[in-house]
Amino acid sequence: MQPHQDGPLARLRRGHEDLVLDLLRKHGPLSRAELGQHSGLSRTTLSDIVTELIESGAVVATAPGTAPRRRGRPVEALTLNPSAGQAIGIDFARRAVHVSAVNVAHEVIGSASEPHDPGLPWEERITLAERLVGTLAEGALRLGALNAIGVGVVGPVEGPDAGPDAGPAQPCPSADLPALLRKRFEAPVLVDNNTRLAALAEATWGAAAGGQDVLYLRLSHGVGGGLVVAGALHRGAYGLSGEFGHIAVESGDGRCSCGATGCLETVASVGAVLAAYRRAGGHADGLAALLGALEAGDPVALRTLEVAGTHIGTVLAAVCNAIGPGVIVLGGELAAAGPPLFEPVERALRAHIMPISRDRVDLRPAALGEAGGALGGIALVLCESPLLSHYPARPG
Amino acid sequence: MQPHQDGPLARLRRGHEDLVLDLLRKHGPLSRAELGQHSGLSRTTLSDIVTELIESGAVVATAPGTAPRRRGRPVEALTLNPSAGQAIGIDFARRAVHVSAVNVAHEVIGSASEPHDPGLPWEERITLAERLVGTLAEGALRLGALNAIGVGVVGPVEGPDAGPDAGPAQPCPSADLPALLRKRFEAPVLVDNNTRLAALAEATWGAAAGGQDVLYLRLSHGVGGGLVVAGALHRGAYGLSGEFGHIAVESGDGRCSCGATGCLETVASVGAVLAAYRRAGGHADGLAALLGALEAGDPVALRTLEVAGTHIGTVLAAVCNAIGPGVIVLGGELAAAGPPLFEPVERALRAHIMPISRDRVDLRPAALGEAGGALGGIALVLCESPLLSHYPARPG
Repeated sequence: MQPHQDGPLARLRRGHEDLVLDLLRKHGPLSRAELGQHSGLSRTTLSDIVTELIESGAVVATAPGTAPRRRGRPVEALTLNPSAGQAIGIDFARRAVHVSAVNVAHEVIGSASEPHDPGLPWEERITLAERLVGTLAEGALRLGALNAIGVGVVGPVEGPDAGPDAGPAQPCPSADLPALLRKRFEAPVLVDNNTRLAALAEATWGAAAGGQDVLYLRLSHGVGGGLVVAGALHRGAYGLSGEFGHIAVESGDGRCSCGATGCLETVASVGAVLAAYRRAGGHADGLAALLGALEAGDPVALRTLEVAGTHIGTVLAAVCNAIGPGVIVLGGELAAAGPPLFEPVERALRAHIMPISRDRVDLRPAALGEAGGALGGIALVLCESPLLSHYPARPG
Repeated sequence: MQPHQDGPLARLRRGHEDLVLDLLRKHGPLSRAELGQHSGLSRTTLSDIVTELIESGAVVATAPGTAPRRRGRPVEALTLNPSAGQAIGIDFARRAVHVSAVNVAHEVIGSASEPHDPGLPWEERITLAERLVGTLAEGALRLGALNAIGVGVVGPVEGPDAGPDAGPAQPCPSADLPALLRKRFEAPVLVDNNTRLAALAEATWGAAAGGQDVLYLRLSHGVGGGLVVAGALHRGAYGLSGEFGHIAVESGDGRCSCGATGCLETVASVGAVLAAYRRAGGHADGLAALLGALEAGDPVALRTLEVAGTHIGTVLAAVCNAIGPGVIVLGGELAAAGPPLFEPVERALRAHIMPISRDRVDLRPAALGEAGGALGGIALVLCESPLLSHYPARPG
């Protein structure tokens, strides 16, 4: 097999493979002659492409004789392998592993999740992921035909082929994560930041399904996010796109985990909001209690969320003026606060966004919850490597 | 000719055309057989592609007999048309028309410019553009082989095929601008915001040449900008990407032309900086005088630029945290202030960007000056429609 190349010929070849798979998806079984007519490819090129697709397990050829005869000649029919094209997403979150899987029609066919201690060693996290994937595989999934695995990790990642980088968030101690996973699952592995992957998942299956330009903000123990730009996950020049939690807020002076001061995270994370609530005289031992106070109409809790929401909306307006997304998705545990959070966010957003853009961006709650990172891993595989399995050689 | 289509077959066809042109660019003259071997295309497909390329003027076939004979058979050789592939950029700025042209090797072969009254009617601006292009055409340029024209206008534009939209900046009163230009120049026309085009030009030929993720900020009578994301011009969901001048600054309360208050533009435009200088007791009847005062070391002028630069750097840090560009380019008349502006910008940028990103982004002065918009028009043509001329039918 050829190594992965990015020259025009390699890109053209992948385009040809995509086209053949698209045609089989749309038309159902086709003979080689029919594929040639539809695709405009030469017999030699098509033969090469089809051979590789069959070798990779993406396409199966039904033997001559079993296909319907036409004009007396037995015709070999090519079809998508019903157990191929499957992808798995794994999210190695701070305190849990989440996995999801899709079938060849890109439908989510199963998800599983298990919490763990944040200190759990990586070897054990991978074993846990393997076990969870095993529970899915007991169903319809044929792991042998896995197209690729999309993996979310905490912290910055430069690109899908790179391992996780050292960063302000909990770094993955093993730069070999992709290699380890490739060995365990015998499939190519793409890695990205799990919050960015959640953004891609929301733009693929979630609150912004079908959105081409989506801003996702996650309000959790940290504040992060991700951007989908023109339908693709945005990474920036050095893998640090979507760090909305580290945009400075007006008169912010709190010290942030990133080393700077005044970051949005210092006023809008779950911990920061709880601390502000307590400073204002509220009593809550955790987010659930604060959410309860909000539901009960506690004015101190409402005021606390209004302050946080105003900061969030102001930062979102700045980002909207810079990049003009069509949809903003708010996720993370704090988003469960609902209108007491969303209303001040929306007010500040509308107040600070350019008036001409005011009615062009939608603010929506995230739809995918904790599964977002794992689903985003799958979305990454579907977006960026529909045929990745043809390039990196598989072991065995 | 076929209408422009975006289906997978149309995309594949454009891919085939690109490949054939790429092969001719790299290898020089090739026979059809050689093109077939290099491209992997069938004889029929290749014949269609080559016929279209010849009809469009992009490729010329030297008659059998003039090419070197191989094994006794006369072989038709295909080459790039040396006078084809040329593109023109036109920037309809507020007070001037700028034009530039490139040859088939994508080298800038000429530029021309003429100032005009801001109230000049559009018909006359177009006539002026036509005359300026004519001065270029007297050189090597063959207008008949024009690939496309990339046009910059003031104000928001949804996409390259759309005319300029109504917007906060001076709108183009004629929604028919692309049609008018197409009629005059007999070539397809792409339109975009001229500041965004300047961003693309800086990322193509200018201060960030070769940059894949570039943030361009223009400090002029207005404050605007543009983003290049993964090598392509970024537009956002509704054509309002890069509006950095309308990001709110801390304790900003000035009313902005966009209708909001506290925008960066209200403290960092040429007019705003001059006004601040005068409020602080400085005397300057225009930017030249202020630049003179800066050079003379006037502490009031230096302090004024420090305040503006701090606001600019803070906004840039916010945008960097959101999108992680590798290069920031500062352009526009105010950028001529040099270190008294760049130093406070850099300080505020480094203070507010995530520490992990601090050393990953370069701040540079723009390199292309007033020609940026027109050059960006050409860059747009080269990026987005290397073969656009095959699709929209040309008159005549």
